[in-house]
Amino acid sequence: MNGAQLLVKAAVASGIEYCFANPGTTEIPLVAALANEPSLKPVLSLFEGVCTGAADGYGRIAGRPALTLTHLGPGFANGIANLHNARRANTPIVNVIGDHASWHVDYDPPLASDIGALAGAVSGWVRTSKSTDGLAHDLQSAIRAAWQPAGQIASLILPMDLQAREVAQAPRFSTLSAPRRRFAGDRVESVAAALRAGRKLVFIVGDEGLGEAGLLAAGRLAQLPGVKLFAETFPRLSHRGGGLPDLDRLPYFPEVAIGILEQYDAVVCAGVPEPISYFGYEGIPSRLAESDRLLHLAEVGDDVSGALAALADALEAPACAPAPIGVELPDAGEALSPQSVGRVLAAALPRDSIVSVEGGTCGYPFFTASARAERHRVMTNTGGAIGQGIPVGFGAALAERGTPVFCLQSDGSAQYTIQTLWSIAREQLPVVILIAANHRYAILQNELRRFGVTEFGPQALSLTELDRPRVDWKALAQGYGVPACTVRSNGELHRALAEAKASRAPFLIEMAL
Amino acid sequence: MNGAQLLVKAAVASGIEYCFANPGTTEIPLVAALANEPSLKPVLSLFEGVCTGAADGYGRIAGRPALTLTHLGPGFANGIANLHNARRANTPIVNVIGDHASWHVDYDPPLASDIGALAGAVSGWVRTSKSTDGLAHDLQSAIRAAWQPAGQIASLILPMDLQAREVAQAPRFSTLSAPRRRFAGDRVESVAAALRAGRKLVFIVGDEGLGEAGLLAAGRLAQLPGVKLFAETFPRLSHRGGGLPDLDRLPYFPEVAIGILEQYDAVVCAGVPEPISYFGYEGIPSRLAESDRLLHLAEVGDDVSGALAALADALEAPACAPAPIGVELPDAGEALSPQSVGRVLAAALPRDSIVSVEGGTCGYPFFTASARAERHRVMTNTGGAIGQGIPVGFGAALAERGTPVFCLQSDGSAQYTIQTLWSIAREQLPVVILIAANHRYAILQNELRRFGVTEFGPQALSLTELDRPRVDWKALAQGYGVPACTVRSNGELHRALAEAKASRAPFLIEMAL
Repeated sequence: MNGAQLLVKAAVASGIEYCFANPGTTEIPLVAALANEPSLKPVLSLFEGVCTGAADGYGRIAGRPALTLTHLGPGFANGIANLHNARRANTPIVNVIGDHASWHVDYDPPLASDIGALAGAVSGWVRTSKSTDGLAHDLQSAIRAAWQPAGQIASLILPMDLQAREVAQAPRFSTLSAPRRRFAGDRVESVAAALRAGRKLVFIVGDEGLGEAGLLAAGRLAQLPGVKLFAETFPRLSHRGGGLPDLDRLPYFPEVAIGILEQYDAVVCAGVPEPISYFGYEGIPSRLAESDRLLHLAEVGDDVSGALAALADALEAPACAPAPIGVELPDAGEALSPQSVGRVLAAALPRDSIVSVEGGTCGYPFFTASARAERHRVMTNTGGAIGQGIPVGFGAALAERGTPVFCLQSDGSAQYTIQTLWSIAREQLPVVILIAANHRYAILQNELRRFGVTEFGPQALSLTELDRPRVDWKALAQGYGVPACTVRSNGELHRALAEAKASRAPFLIEMAL
Repeated sequence: MNGAQLLVKAAVASGIEYCFANPGTTEIPLVAALANEPSLKPVLSLFEGVCTGAADGYGRIAGRPALTLTHLGPGFANGIANLHNARRANTPIVNVIGDHASWHVDYDPPLASDIGALAGAVSGWVRTSKSTDGLAHDLQSAIRAAWQPAGQIASLILPMDLQAREVAQAPRFSTLSAPRRRFAGDRVESVAAALRAGRKLVFIVGDEGLGEAGLLAAGRLAQLPGVKLFAETFPRLSHRGGGLPDLDRLPYFPEVAIGILEQYDAVVCAGVPEPISYFGYEGIPSRLAESDRLLHLAEVGDDVSGALAALADALEAPACAPAPIGVELPDAGEALSPQSVGRVLAAALPRDSIVSVEGGTCGYPFFTASARAERHRVMTNTGGAIGQGIPVGFGAALAERGTPVFCLQSDGSAQYTIQTLWSIAREQLPVVILIAANHRYAILQNELRRFGVTEFGPQALSLTELDRPRVDWKALAQGYGVPACTVRSNGELHRALAEAKASRAPFLIEMAL
């Protein structure tokens, strides 16, 4: 048994199912070891950002880490953007990064670079393996570091010679188990006391608090006087619909969020960090609420739903009636709009499906409409690095094979990891990709207007319009083996979604907006 | 005038022509400034790896830096792989990386990350701007740091508030000029003395030594007894054909290269670093020649051609007769092979064209055949981060608008920056992309065999074969607005190249291998 085989066995012993891989020469022993281990499925992608985004989606749904396998500094660097998002989602991921043989790297061969610096920028844990016999321990330490209540990115840098060398000692594997979440009773008591004292409180709920139990507790709290609840603006995973209480997301632009929060005596953080403006705008504070106006009910990684339920119990909040179900379809003959897209998709969602949302144009209207859909789960872009939606949807579809997954995706951001279409076709997963094709970076044009630019000349348009040439989404999907169609009206979208669902196979719908 | 406008004016005053951009909210003032400055052309790409690869290609051909403009840590990270290649090519590039407002970043908003660590991993120079009035000086310092005889990557991190703030002082710009290369006469004399003493010497020529003057001097030296010359294995820019002396590239695999070099008394480095094996293989030394067997005629960044010419003069080497021109076309009816692809392309090259080569399958046979082509220039992948060939070809085509550019590209590596097709279509450049479609990572299968894996089971194939599904290259090209065809025989490729050249517009040829 060589080091690579030991590492693969340690992964299997730790319950790892998937290795999202784009390997190279320095990972050859690992490729050979993966080739002979049926319990750990290697999933090849055409670009590393697909691997890391898929590991994020897998981790959010499966609640456990997957491995990624990338090639040296540059290969890993291609995966950084989606690891950034995963870090902000607290998704547990273990990166194995192949390096040159330890006796070779100091000669500075062409592919050498500072992998540790790159890995450190997105990881909570980084280690370079030093011995072949230590590889099982190194990998299990990485898994343990990643698989916390607030998950982390752990990166193990693995020199090629350690992979290839024979193991001397009989391997021993630790037993790893899922992390346990807890909440602090005294924090529940402080918030309860504030409410009993008649203070008006606005809650921002995130993390596991947006699961079913958390939402049901939130629904109870919402019936108390002086209480208002929001979901965090970009949830990692939010259960929605099927009668669950509807928590609106806190608005994105800081002046709007501040205007809401300042109507209350205090802001309760329930599974979210201190609320901060996404970007800094002159004259608008970074903090959406001053520190002395914050109450911390639960941290990220806590048993947020437990804390919410304990609070509801302490205040004897009544059970809440199931929210209404049933999305009203817009007029079939009308042209698609962001609002109608949200409603048509929400109406089409099968029970227990998953939706990966990236991009604001259709994302916000969809979230509003989806409150009345069948029970489903929504994942959003937590870190703002674009090119996340389709890979995350792909990983989610692997975490629950057979579950229908819908990627509601802006066209601009879809391009960053467009190679995911090939992976979805390769695995023949029931993933429907809806491209909101407005052929522009709408957010940049909005921000230019906020900055005071009122007229867009040729160079401003050249930096914000994607219409010269227009991407032919049907052709692109066909290029990667995904059937596709273009729809222009609500009725066409409705029918296309029905066909796509019936096929239980990959499908792309270009929505001309 | 605000800081962003000052920075743009400083770029124009320094002779910068292009800004390869994929901006976001933190770069809005720069987008607004670029929109009003016709002398600095912004070139939008759909993915940052296209921006940095294009800046590399531009820099190699233009001999001066371009700007890249990227959005925060994740956006910059998407460009790291091609910056790694550019660093190994010593291409001057100035990255401007937008950051959060300096008063906002410490609140750790979602898109915050350690940009300095990411930039440091590929840059020779990194600075975070501290004042609006200092922006012109900061940018010109970056340009000066990049634009050295051995070019560097310089990265300027630019907080959003500094871009937006008004400039207080009248701006002053330094005059920057192209760096001057020199060579060391005493080194020329040592090598001359070794040859006069009858030592057999093998030269490895790189950098500017592979330009016309360097090759002509190399051709003179090649006629001296006991002298053999190779080009470095992965030249940044090599002039070829049109009667120029043909320098073979030093073979890639270390055991082959060592076998050649050890036939000589010493190894002369002429514009290359010490020769090192690309990867470390057990039992094979990292150094292709021991240090005490090396003679250093010229460093990277030196006047390599001047040193070679001075050496030829010192040894009274005769002028060399022009090498023969004329590539024999393979049988038109036969199926394509890597060898025949090399010959058909070499025969089709118009005078003064540029070829960007990525991937070994067709790359090596092409280099051999191209010795007898019309005069042209070849760029190769210097750093081994794949996804470089098409962006570098794109940047080269912008550096010399109107010059025909050919990208000879392996299919696997083309996928990493496939979005470049859109940029080429947008700019309507005469770039012909030839995809060597063997639908596998051939190099990984070769390396698995070298590692001793003789039979490839389903999981080994799943990690190295790209045939499930096969990418439909014609559809993909159409998706991005590039006309395309598929060819199977030598005659079909010959005709397709003739048509593509005549169109003087983007064209993609899938070569079924």
